[in-house]
Amino acid sequence: MIESTLRLSTANLTELEHLALNSELNVADGHARQQLSEGQQRIIDELPTLFEKAAVQPVADLERDAHRAFFHLMGQQSYPIGPNPVLSCYASSVAMEILARSLVTKTDAVALIHPTFDNIPDILRGVGLRLVPLEEDPLHAGDLSSVVPPDVGCIFVTTPNNPTGRVLTRERLAELAAECRRKDVVLALDTSFRGFDTRSHYDHYAVLEASGCRWVVIEDTGKLWPTLDLKVGLLAYSENVGLPIPKIYSDILLGVSPFILALVERFAEDAAGDGLADLHAFVAESRRIVRTTLADVPGVSFPDPDSRVSVERVDLGGRRCADVWSALHERQVYALPCTQFHWADPSLGDRSLRIALARPHTSLRAAVRELRAVLLAH
Amino acid sequence: MIESTLRLSTANLTELEHLALNSELNVADGHARQQLSEGQQRIIDELPTLFEKAAVQPVADLERDAHRAFFHLMGQQSYPIGPNPVLSCYASSVAMEILARSLVTKTDAVALIHPTFDNIPDILRGVGLRLVPLEEDPLHAGDLSSVVPPDVGCIFVTTPNNPTGRVLTRERLAELAAECRRKDVVLALDTSFRGFDTRSHYDHYAVLEASGCRWVVIEDTGKLWPTLDLKVGLLAYSENVGLPIPKIYSDILLGVSPFILALVERFAEDAAGDGLADLHAFVAESRRIVRTTLADVPGVSFPDPDSRVSVERVDLGGRRCADVWSALHERQVYALPCTQFHWADPSLGDRSLRIALARPHTSLRAAVRELRAVLLAH
Repeated sequence: MIESTLRLSTANLTELEHLALNSELNVADGHARQQLSEGQQRIIDELPTLFEKAAVQPVADLERDAHRAFFHLMGQQSYPIGPNPVLSCYASSVAMEILARSLVTKTDAVALIHPTFDNIPDILRGVGLRLVPLEEDPLHAGDLSSVVPPDVGCIFVTTPNNPTGRVLTRERLAELAAECRRKDVVLALDTSFRGFDTRSHYDHYAVLEASGCRWVVIEDTGKLWPTLDLKVGLLAYSENVGLPIPKIYSDILLGVSPFILALVERFAEDAAGDGLADLHAFVAESRRIVRTTLADVPGVSFPDPDSRVSVERVDLGGRRCADVWSALHERQVYALPCTQFHWADPSLGDRSLRIALARPHTSLRAAVRELRAVLLAH
Repeated sequence: MIESTLRLSTANLTELEHLALNSELNVADGHARQQLSEGQQRIIDELPTLFEKAAVQPVADLERDAHRAFFHLMGQQSYPIGPNPVLSCYASSVAMEILARSLVTKTDAVALIHPTFDNIPDILRGVGLRLVPLEEDPLHAGDLSSVVPPDVGCIFVTTPNNPTGRVLTRERLAELAAECRRKDVVLALDTSFRGFDTRSHYDHYAVLEASGCRWVVIEDTGKLWPTLDLKVGLLAYSENVGLPIPKIYSDILLGVSPFILALVERFAEDAAGDGLADLHAFVAESRRIVRTTLADVPGVSFPDPDSRVSVERVDLGGRRCADVWSALHERQVYALPCTQFHWADPSLGDRSLRIALARPHTSLRAAVRELRAVLLAH
């Protein structure tokens, strides 16, 4: 439906993902579309029992258990449970909307990591916030005082970042939090992809709390497991945050489905066994498929050699991503142009594509072979 | 968690509903918490098969089938499928948020039905819109020209209304749409409770389209069936609406879970058999329980004799709802004060309570007996 009127240059990334939804060769969206593992299939086989459990158990218990299982899997030994408990949302983007609506009651500007997925700048701008780009290199190394501009009310960082996979280390997070504390700026993190990268499985909340800064973290169970988008976004924040987050949350929802909470707990428990390691091996093999299939294409390179997240950028070696995207489209293959990730300067992204890795390897291989053919012809 | 800091006078309705979530005697929220029927239980027993179907079938097909089954159940033979297809949202409140964010790009004021559930005014105000109250009596009878103020960009009507149950007839909707067309004002409807009332099972979209007005309708599958809040909100709008609805939708979501779409289709099919009539009989019996249990309490009356929705207002006959609510709270019984529904003049609601009817009759009876005891003591 979108297709008939869509123009690549003005479409946002989600609209481009929507085009791909019904294609066999969809390597566009970052949702988890791999096959269920055996352990996961056993959970699905027991859905009727899970439904019954979720119907009778108090929702506070289901929520507590889901949070604990998920957070422990992410290396989060601590998380808010007191007067400002973690809020379960329908999705991380709903958490993002609630945060944006809360921020705009107290500030008019946010410093936002650049590049990042475009729905983050679009939601922030959509509620009326002005954005200041925060480049990845100065964010990760060097003097931090200039990274936090004086005239913003919030610093927003995606870690691991999408699409680059760059991870904020524990030490750097502590420095950034201290700087935000000094300047009384809210530090907001989107950690939706952290499940893929053990380097981000440290206790972010302990670091943030120790700094004394005002902080918010958005987490997401939706990127990891092929649960057909049965997922929750989590919205955690410090007691001192000074934003009307719980009130705006209650304008939007009473709570998420207890069935989904029970499902998240079960998938997190399965992952805490061998499941997460198996998933990491699966994504590593996906990445190897992309890199080896394209290895001999002149000019092509991979700008994120250390990335472990479930998406991979491909530098097209001077080819324009609009041309490559259109040629792929003709072959029913859908990837994302990187243009829109560079929300502050789209030209920086117009020579690369993003490939989603959380796909069955046969589909991924077929899609990347088509990409190879297109690149060799351009 | 909310409880520790909550004050009845400043809490919104959702916060009060949250207090009730873990109580056996929760007659607060309007979610469907009755037992599964036999037909519904058979669907739940087959969830693993449904998951498999949803995993392999194209999501466009699942969405089309879910929309068709649900709309036909509601008496909607027509609905948008062309360049402005119905958008599936995580919940009706997410559809509401998307509509509010779209409206504020084009107007600064909305005329809103009064009373109605407070998250509607809160979301509209939260994005910066000014509200003008639209009282139910002039909305439903008499000269419409004064009902549509000259300085608003949208008229928002909940039909059937929550908590009053009042339904906009086909004829009145046509008149209202014509008036909105004349004044070039968007006509927005929230029909989340229409499933309970066959008097609203006429083709709203055909009436709206015939008028030529700019219109938006929010529908909800979440009030009807005890699916543990596995639900979708639907956002339908006219091609001429002139609001950036699909763009803001794509900022918030790519789509809802295909599993939930498949589930909605199955529950709607079950309801199209005998399920919906059985549900209506169930709610009528719930209403009879409330009315007969309280029949001999001095001063108590039921201001909405014709209501068929799954909530019932109780006029406390001069008792203050804050006092009754607090006394119920001490007995672990949770209802909603009507104060907050009267968003433009809370004093109009401070002598009535709202009781949720979509509960197992044993729980409902127990809760209403407690209410009876409280009322007799006050």
